[in-house]
Amino acid sequence: MTLQNESLRDHACLIVHGPDKPGIVAAVTALITRNKGNIVTLDQYSDDANGGAFFQRVVFHRPDLSAAMPDIEADLADTVTALGLEWTLTDQSVPKRMAILASTSDHCLLELLWRHRRGELPVTIPMVISNHTNVAADVRSFGIPFFHVPSQGPDKSEAEAKILELLKGNVDFIVLARYMQIISEDFLDSVGVPVINIHHSFLPAFIGAAPYRKAKERGVKLIGATSHYVTKDLDEGPIIEQDVARVDHAHSAADLQARGAYVERAVLSRAVQWHAQDRVIRHGNQTIVF
Amino acid sequence: MTLQNESLRDHACLIVHGPDKPGIVAAVTALITRNKGNIVTLDQYSDDANGGAFFQRVVFHRPDLSAAMPDIEADLADTVTALGLEWTLTDQSVPKRMAILASTSDHCLLELLWRHRRGELPVTIPMVISNHTNVAADVRSFGIPFFHVPSQGPDKSEAEAKILELLKGNVDFIVLARYMQIISEDFLDSVGVPVINIHHSFLPAFIGAAPYRKAKERGVKLIGATSHYVTKDLDEGPIIEQDVARVDHAHSAADLQARGAYVERAVLSRAVQWHAQDRVIRHGNQTIVF
Amino acid sequence: MTLQNESLRDHACLIVHGPDKPGIVAAVTALITRNKGNIVTLDQYSDDANGGAFFQRVVFHRPDLSAAMPDIEADLADTVTALGLEWTLTDQSVPKRMAILASTSDHCLLELLWRHRRGELPVTIPMVISNHTNVAADVRSFGIPFFHVPSQGPDKSEAEAKILELLKGNVDFIVLARYMQIISEDFLDSVGVPVINIHHSFLPAFIGAAPYRKAKERGVKLIGATSHYVTKDLDEGPIIEQDVARVDHAHSAADLQARGAYVERAVLSRAVQWHAQDRVIRHGNQTIVF
Amino acid sequence: MTLQNESLRDHACLIVHGPDKPGIVAAVTALITRNKGNIVTLDQYSDDANGGAFFQRVVFHRPDLSAAMPDIEADLADTVTALGLEWTLTDQSVPKRMAILASTSDHCLLELLWRHRRGELPVTIPMVISNHTNVAADVRSFGIPFFHVPSQGPDKSEAEAKILELLKGNVDFIVLARYMQIISEDFLDSVGVPVINIHHSFLPAFIGAAPYRKAKERGVKLIGATSHYVTKDLDEGPIIEQDVARVDHAHSAADLQARGAYVERAVLSRAVQWHAQDRVIRHGNQTIVF
Repeated sequence: MTLQNESLRDHACLIVHGPDKPGIVAAVTALITRNKGNIVTLDQYSDDANGGAFFQRVVFHRPDLSAAMPDIEADLADTVTALGLEWTLTDQSVPKRMAILASTSDHCLLELLWRHRRGELPVTIPMVISNHTNVAADVRSFGIPFFHVPSQGPDKSEAEAKILELLKGNVDFIVLARYMQIISEDFLDSVGVPVINIHHSFLPAFIGAAPYRKAKERGVKLIGATSHYVTKDLDEGPIIEQDVARVDHAHSAADLQARGAYVERAVLSRAVQWHAQDRVIRHGNQTIVF
Repeated sequence: MTLQNESLRDHACLIVHGPDKPGIVAAVTALITRNKGNIVTLDQYSDDANGGAFFQRVVFHRPDLSAAMPDIEADLADTVTALGLEWTLTDQSVPKRMAILASTSDHCLLELLWRHRRGELPVTIPMVISNHTNVAADVRSFGIPFFHVPSQGPDKSEAEAKILELLKGNVDFIVLARYMQIISEDFLDSVGVPVINIHHSFLPAFIGAAPYRKAKERGVKLIGATSHYVTKDLDEGPIIEQDVARVDHAHSAADLQARGAYVERAVLSRAVQWHAQDRVIRHGNQTIVF
Repeated sequence: MTLQNESLRDHACLIVHGPDKPGIVAAVTALITRNKGNIVTLDQYSDDANGGAFFQRVVFHRPDLSAAMPDIEADLADTVTALGLEWTLTDQSVPKRMAILASTSDHCLLELLWRHRRGELPVTIPMVISNHTNVAADVRSFGIPFFHVPSQGPDKSEAEAKILELLKGNVDFIVLARYMQIISEDFLDSVGVPVINIHHSFLPAFIGAAPYRKAKERGVKLIGATSHYVTKDLDEGPIIEQDVARVDHAHSAADLQARGAYVERAVLSRAVQWHAQDRVIRHGNQTIVF
Repeated sequence: MTLQNESLRDHACLIVHGPDKPGIVAAVTALITRNKGNIVTLDQYSDDANGGAFFQRVVFHRPDLSAAMPDIEADLADTVTALGLEWTLTDQSVPKRMAILASTSDHCLLELLWRHRRGELPVTIPMVISNHTNVAADVRSFGIPFFHVPSQGPDKSEAEAKILELLKGNVDFIVLARYMQIISEDFLDSVGVPVINIHHSFLPAFIGAAPYRKAKERGVKLIGATSHYVTKDLDEGPIIEQDVARVDHAHSAADLQARGAYVERAVLSRAVQWHAQDRVIRHGNQTIVF
């Protein structure tokens, strides 16, 4: 176990969600108290006061957390599962393992590597995989393994199989940092961990390819970027974060792309940070971000 | 002639646009100089250094402007028309006449009336027309005529005919301040002046009706508003201005609408101000905003 | 009792703050549950995991709330006071009574009156007081009483005495909507309710008079506004909200003032809304805004 | 001569400023035309229509520019100097030489190196100088020379002398990328080129040391950064660019610093780009940014 940050030692994050009913917050907080936890942060949201969905994130401190985890999990199974709710409990001192898939563009990739080096992303990065080699030296200069998996021809299944082999068992989530290959539904089914993408427009505007060119043609005054979970429906997955930048008539499509790069890297970084901190709960095609 | 603002007395605005070629700026500035004008502001843009379109806006001061206008116009016809360019010359001290069409929502309407009263919009407002009566008292409290033109049944031609009769010859441009009726192509052809609309989304996202509901369903993290010129293609006209506001999962569709109202009124106000100051040049389906 | 909003019927807001210790959240949520309340929203913050200050805001639904209030308050006195914590319990369906003090500027005043009319501010407005009369007609057109209390000469004590007489017992908080008179320490002591001000700069920059002129002289690229609680230390009270707008070299000091007006009214409106919803907790010279 | 960008070949930038009078724009554009230049972009500003200061930036294309420069300069000396105006003419295809001074923080430094590698900054970087060595490997990985000049003890004159020796004749401007040493007046006098600094607050708020700690103590809701030219008056030089980010009560001073780093690097990058493109004109303690 790698301790990402000493200040997170003995801190647990509990996510609870499911059908709302009276008394959930009280039941959960009582459970934490009787398991000797002290609540550090609590966020809670109900999408309808009259019987909608309930979402809660609690971070609590519990001395000797790792020894106590089995007991707390047993208590959660007894108490919270019995209320018809789903829960996940994670040790905040154990960083998630994040793989990055990239192509030739380096701006999102380098931003993640650099923020990681600064200690701002609570993750480890076991590998970067690219269908090109131009970013290899940069990646390795951060001390991170780089694997080249070329993606030639119309049949991507061989390349995807190789990527799956590299990832299998080694990662907790995957980030597509301007990875310019379409991920197959088979791949998503097999990989079994969340996949986060950055799309270079303020979705749902300019779905599909070449959004900056389309933005120039439409004459918009703002360009944007969207980070979302990847689902089988291209560009339709749950949105985690979005942002925009102002542009004007004097910007060419290439200028929009250059400006957009800075929005993309900021939006993706925030999405990755929030996911890594267990702040994002998926609910249908939407996200709750605490 | 109404002097909107003493500081604009004897100020002219010259817009020149057309195919780019060397020497246009020099020719135009020489023309202004030989007509005893002093340039106050000059904006210029070429969309391609190698023979694209050329756009220029010059504000100049010329003592006794109104007496000199015919001579300047004759010189422009000789010089600038000869260069294959289009031009318009306006006396900045003559405010444009702006009619407002509204329905039941008051936020965009009141914002325009209030900014006008503060002297921030260089326009006169000869009338407000609505298919409802709830805003009548507010409008008249600003000293502005209000006309009620109901719009019942599927056939809008009678209502449009009445509106045209009211507007004809009385206005220089029209603002749809959340006017919830579709404007017919016939109306646009007949009215003969620019029509500015405010759409309650960051176009081209959520084209059509109920954008806030669609935004809630898609789970976006930003909502927006777009002001554009109205063309026969609904929601497809040239964009003048856009802006966004941040929202989160806790906002209902009604909350998005309430927040969006503040973006709408700000975006529409800026678009109206820029149009009234001759800062916006239409070019195909785009705008140059100086 | 006026019901501001039917959807807030039987909703209470409980604020708890004081020295942090383990188990507070659990104790408070158990109290709400045993008093038959159902938690709608819970926000919690501790400024130091190791024994700092604790802040909590809970909104809960309790059928027949007003009948149950005495019992809940007795339980709070037993339980929460015993933990060394302070608490306030308010019935969310009872709007706070807000007086507005203004001078000649109308932008902040009208924004508040208009948002109130739209039902976006959970307050009643028993009166507007001004040392000028120019806003009287506008105020009364909203159906709100207007009182003129002139403020002549260096001795403000007579005017303040008259204002106090009008306010005494009639208001829960006071908003200075660009009220251009300095409030004396005696007034603050006597009035006994919170006073919210809007300052036309991003404090602590440009403390004191004429901030837009100073901003122009310093050549800043952003101007701002700050809403804060008024204390005896002028411009030094706890900040509730701030925002900025971009400006450039072409803006005169008068332009900065005109642009700033829109930032001021937005910032003040948000601060008032949050205060009225019991979202703001004062802590020393700072605020926690939930 | 290094061509930074083929698209800038044969493009010149002319800056003209001085006391305003009628006919300057016409005189300058006529000069460009008779020297066979074609205007690509023209920006112009007068700070007072009645005899204030005049500022103009023109980019024009002139085939065989370098051969024609002496003639154009002679014409400018005859024509524009005669009008009592100052001017500078630069060949846009010749990138400015930018030295960077840094200390231990890498965020501003790496941002500049990375944007430079992407071709977004029209500069060459002959050297990075630091009083620490921790950034040496990163700098050299970009193929840029790194020099270590320690700065020990209270007397900085020896270190400054060494830095001056390295810079002398080799640079066109200097960027302090979070360089944590105070620059002496002697150094500024000797170095003879503009020096651009990034200050980690929205000046003039929180002048001096530890702005993030002061911001936390004051409880501001926005933090900012300011890029300005360095003058002998610490933190008082002409502001080039500013921006802010939203923060709340839950952010510690360390959090503000981490967030602020992203504002700092964006603000400094924009300021450097604009300076390198001759878009910034100093005027007293202010800047005109075209």
